[in-house]
Amino acid sequence: MSLLVVGSVAFDTIRTPDGKEYQDVLGGSCTYFSCAASYLADVRVVGVVGDDFGQEPIDLLEKHGVDLTGLEVVQGGRTFRWAGTYAENMNDRTTDDLQFGVLGGFDPKLPENYRDSDTVFLACAQPELQLKVMDQMRGSPLVVCDTIEFYIETAREALDQVLSRCDGVIINDGEAKLLTGESNVIRAGERIAKMGPRFVVVKKGEHGGVLLAEGQAWPFPAFPLTDVADPTGAGDSFAGGFMGYLSRKKSSDLNTLRRATVYGTALASYACQGISLNRLAALSKVEVEKRACDFAAMLRIPE
Amino acid sequence: MSLLVVGSVAFDTIRTPDGKEYQDVLGGSCTYFSCAASYLADVRVVGVVGDDFGQEPIDLLEKHGVDLTGLEVVQGGRTFRWAGTYAENMNDRTTDDLQFGVLGGFDPKLPENYRDSDTVFLACAQPELQLKVMDQMRGSPLVVCDTIEFYIETAREALDQVLSRCDGVIINDGEAKLLTGESNVIRAGERIAKMGPRFVVVKKGEHGGVLLAEGQAWPFPAFPLTDVADPTGAGDSFAGGFMGYLSRKKSSDLNTLRRATVYGTALASYACQGISLNRLAALSKVEVEKRACDFAAMLRIPE
Repeated sequence: MSLLVVGSVAFDTIRTPDGKEYQDVLGGSCTYFSCAASYLADVRVVGVVGDDFGQEPIDLLEKHGVDLTGLEVVQGGRTFRWAGTYAENMNDRTTDDLQFGVLGGFDPKLPENYRDSDTVFLACAQPELQLKVMDQMRGSPLVVCDTIEFYIETAREALDQVLSRCDGVIINDGEAKLLTGESNVIRAGERIAKMGPRFVVVKKGEHGGVLLAEGQAWPFPAFPLTDVADPTGAGDSFAGGFMGYLSRKKSSDLNTLRRATVYGTALASYACQGISLNRLAALSKVEVEKRACDFAAMLRIPE
Repeated sequence: MSLLVVGSVAFDTIRTPDGKEYQDVLGGSCTYFSCAASYLADVRVVGVVGDDFGQEPIDLLEKHGVDLTGLEVVQGGRTFRWAGTYAENMNDRTTDDLQFGVLGGFDPKLPENYRDSDTVFLACAQPELQLKVMDQMRGSPLVVCDTIEFYIETAREALDQVLSRCDGVIINDGEAKLLTGESNVIRAGERIAKMGPRFVVVKKGEHGGVLLAEGQAWPFPAFPLTDVADPTGAGDSFAGGFMGYLSRKKSSDLNTLRRATVYGTALASYACQGISLNRLAALSKVEVEKRACDFAAMLRIPE
């Protein structure tokens, strides 16, 4: 039931196609992930923020039972900031600004009580840092990672090491293609599985994704939404729901992985329904179960 | 069990990203549709070709039990031709050339024995022609239509009439958005349903699609393929599998519609696995049932 996540904690500025701008709202892979996973498992965060972070987001995550012992607050430092604009389709986006702040010098140190977590998610970070986290773990936790274009292009050797040591990968379609040179998503996922991990989830944004495990592909659509307020963090929320479910079940067998895609999809859809974490952080466990259940029923073709 | 389809019969020239070109291969909405549907229902074709069409494609369709009484052969005329190039992702394509030939003067006349077909698919054609076909039907068949950008932009009034008289619509996501001005696929589908039809399928190419019926959305992924030889006609093959299943079951209740999306997906995936109709036309009924069954199992989340 103990799920460790390492990644970014951020302030986002989000511009939506209706011309609205949401300035310095709470964001970051770690934040979305831990909030989503908190409905299913005990989550422990390793991350870094500046002293501009304030108490409000800390209260929000702690209210969800998220352990923030590993959240380093750098005095005089500035929290990582991202700004982006969404296209009319609410799927494509452009990055307008990126200010690394304290994330630039991030050196993850695991508190003693974190080191025996049974499940680990290495959210998008420098592969060297992801390796450092793995080196600090005791026992043999289930380790799953994510990565982005930047590290595929600039830190390929370390990334290959990460992949060879991971049990699973959760990655976007564009990055899966870049990582493998394959233009077909299924082939890209199969190629990644050959780099080490036992299972791969390739995420396709509003089009759902595909789980590759045991030599088979299991595609799934996204939960149908008529209104997408803000898709920022949907992929990290998917990972949170997915990993939270694995941690809750203490299993990663094929059936559990397949059910985990349903929880991931449910949490990702809730994340899209509010600006920043507004909707995601306001859920009840019953709402999470209900959407997962509704989604599984949506997929079940009547005999 | 009698399924009428009206649409184009064509020769296609297909250019794939590996640099290959397939010249004047059999194509057209009617052709893909009728071949796909032939595994499930008795299909009757209304279409037009020139005297360059030859006996070979006629033999191929007749071997599948397709009734070609309504296929008009215009002496001295030239069969409709389309040429296109696929992008590296095998999903996007550009039209290189379009020669309407005899399709330009097409005036669909239904043979007497076609007029009591219980199911009708109006594949992409001028809305005025689609109306003419409906006017020639006896009884109250289940009527489903498709359309494209060109008619949405140039024949909106007649198209609105078609939509108001149809039971269902099968349409691409881009066209659904254009038709409704909605950027969200689910909302676009809901808006189309308000124009008359009881159900709408919005197709999303390699990303599957969504069925809208009884006020609910039922999303489905595509069948996962590692190798796509030629996606031409995949949408028409989807429609063929979908409509063929409705005709076979003599029903269009919600459960039948949902199972029909599985047959549509199965036939569309086979269409992608060969150039032109090479794979689609070489199937056995057992292979069709097997893929439909495999796909439904892929979607069923274990308890």
